[in-house]
Amino acid sequence: MHIALDVMGSDRGADELVAGALLALGASSIKITLVGDEEAISAALGKRNFGPAIAVLPTSQVVSMADSPIDAIRRKKDSSMVRAFELLKNKEVDAVVSAGNSGAVMASAIKFLGRLKDISRPAIASVFPTLKGPLIMADVGANVDCRPKHLYQFGVMASSFSKIMFGISEPRVGLLSIGEEGGKGNALVKKTHELLSASNLNFIGNVEGRDTFHGDVDVIVCDGFVGNVCLKLSEGLAESVLIMLREEISKTFRAKMGYMLAQKAFGNFKKRVDYAEYGGAPLLGLNGTAIICHGRSNAKAIQNAILVADELAANRVNDHILANLALDEAGLAAAADDEADK
Amino acid sequence: MHIALDVMGSDRGADELVAGALLALGASSIKITLVGDEEAISAALGKRNFGPAIAVLPTSQVVSMADSPIDAIRRKKDSSMVRAFELLKNKEVDAVVSAGNSGAVMASAIKFLGRLKDISRPAIASVFPTLKGPLIMADVGANVDCRPKHLYQFGVMASSFSKIMFGISEPRVGLLSIGEEGGKGNALVKKTHELLSASNLNFIGNVEGRDTFHGDVDVIVCDGFVGNVCLKLSEGLAESVLIMLREEISKTFRAKMGYMLAQKAFGNFKKRVDYAEYGGAPLLGLNGTAIICHGRSNAKAIQNAILVADELAANRVNDHILANLALDEAGLAAAADDEADK
Repeated sequence: MHIALDVMGSDRGADELVAGALLALGASSIKITLVGDEEAISAALGKRNFGPAIAVLPTSQVVSMADSPIDAIRRKKDSSMVRAFELLKNKEVDAVVSAGNSGAVMASAIKFLGRLKDISRPAIASVFPTLKGPLIMADVGANVDCRPKHLYQFGVMASSFSKIMFGISEPRVGLLSIGEEGGKGNALVKKTHELLSASNLNFIGNVEGRDTFHGDVDVIVCDGFVGNVCLKLSEGLAESVLIMLREEISKTFRAKMGYMLAQKAFGNFKKRVDYAEYGGAPLLGLNGTAIICHGRSNAKAIQNAILVADELAANRVNDHILANLALDEAGLAAAADDEADK
Repeated sequence: MHIALDVMGSDRGADELVAGALLALGASSIKITLVGDEEAISAALGKRNFGPAIAVLPTSQVVSMADSPIDAIRRKKDSSMVRAFELLKNKEVDAVVSAGNSGAVMASAIKFLGRLKDISRPAIASVFPTLKGPLIMADVGANVDCRPKHLYQFGVMASSFSKIMFGISEPRVGLLSIGEEGGKGNALVKKTHELLSASNLNFIGNVEGRDTFHGDVDVIVCDGFVGNVCLKLSEGLAESVLIMLREEISKTFRAKMGYMLAQKAFGNFKKRVDYAEYGGAPLLGLNGTAIICHGRSNAKAIQNAILVADELAANRVNDHILANLALDEAGLAAAADDEADK
């Protein structure tokens, strides 16, 4: 597999992204094209020679976090982001990874790759840490106002992602609601519950916010507004919890001594709750593989995102999604009854 | 002030609730009527004599967590919950506190107290711990499908609560969304943004999930579906974080030693993130004061809930809410344009 990495526009700078690419090269036999400012990339690579495993595509523009997504991709034709997606469109690479402006990544992906046949709305899937295995939540921000059919399709896409990425044969799919019974929730959730029940997905019913971290569900389906709130709330709470722990420990000498003894345990704990450690979020439902990384992703997170891109592209996640949708005629028929348009 | 405490139907039993009542008596000059099974209450009170500060209203039925709210209040007329609200309706007490089935508490409150004039939908307000002061989120579960006017009213009610409870003169009100700019969010949020901007509330614009815990906003407004998901997600994550910390610390002898030294710091940390430590959630927008407590509230949480009930009733929160609504004719006019019904 050949991955294009957009090294510009993140919060941490090109160095960190190039470092992530080099980590990924050490872990897998992939080829990476670094797209971005030539000087910055050269400086980050140094004098080492990586042979054919690393290529560089120099670009002159950067999509910033403040740019309006649609404007940016229209005006900044020589930006690292646009050029990376052009590579994917022209089948010169198999996937794109970017830690830049996530709205612009999404707009570029939709513009250059186009929607997958039979998918109404692409969705962003995010991996959440839990007490047991990883959990996938979709959508976490691509679609703020959704219909039941969209949520059903998010379930199909995230289920395929879970199978390929984590080798779970029948991922347990839950519908995010505010009560476990099928009758609980808002209008969207009630109708989606019927649709998921009629589908071939391994639908386990409604799940609540507090079930998210217990590890008893593999995929959580929700609209992109709720999912994005959940993602950012979790990040914010994890961050705050670490700050609170530090505050309490720094209050007494005795506690500081204890901290020093347990330092390794704290480090592991921090890694488990720190979202920056996790890889990127795949944009599912497009003709091509694209991974959106957090703007403040560290090298480790970038490495993980590149490996996720590699897995998804190599295992043809889109073929799985289309096959699942085709299998699921009952679900689709019900969805068609519900809504006229696609 | 005179508070009715429904001591039945919680996860921890009558003992814990009576213990909470006794803690509250120690902290404030209130009177409390314990409503519930006479034997259970006598056993919990023991032989101590509290004089006129404690009264007991014996009841024969219990609304369980599994009961359907509407059914329960219709059929269980001698339940502790129904009888407590009858006391409030008849003005024999000034407020009700319950840790029972929250749907049934809400249904009872609406049935026996009725909506406050000019309020379309009562809302549940919940207090979240943050790095700085406390934050109030409303609605956290009373209304799953909302219109802009409802969210505006949640802002007015939560603002009054914040003023009275925490003495904040101009509470900063944020609208929960998935981007800081006014144009970001779903259809409901975009319209609500306009309404809040036109109001006399101290509206600081959209806030994101991650802003929740930083302490730079005093009131967050959202619909009851999103708010309930946020509340339960936060509880679940806080719980999981404590489990993860324990797991990491128990892995090595060295870490366990460190834990023992820092035990007090850990205890304080646990208190800061444990939602069971916080008081109840007031149901705002009714002709009377009602506080819904978490089913697993401990005595400390019950004490806090009783003190919140005392503050809200004594300071006539409803008068504040009505005055704020009256002040805000611009907001109301815009809301009336938006929607025909009340």
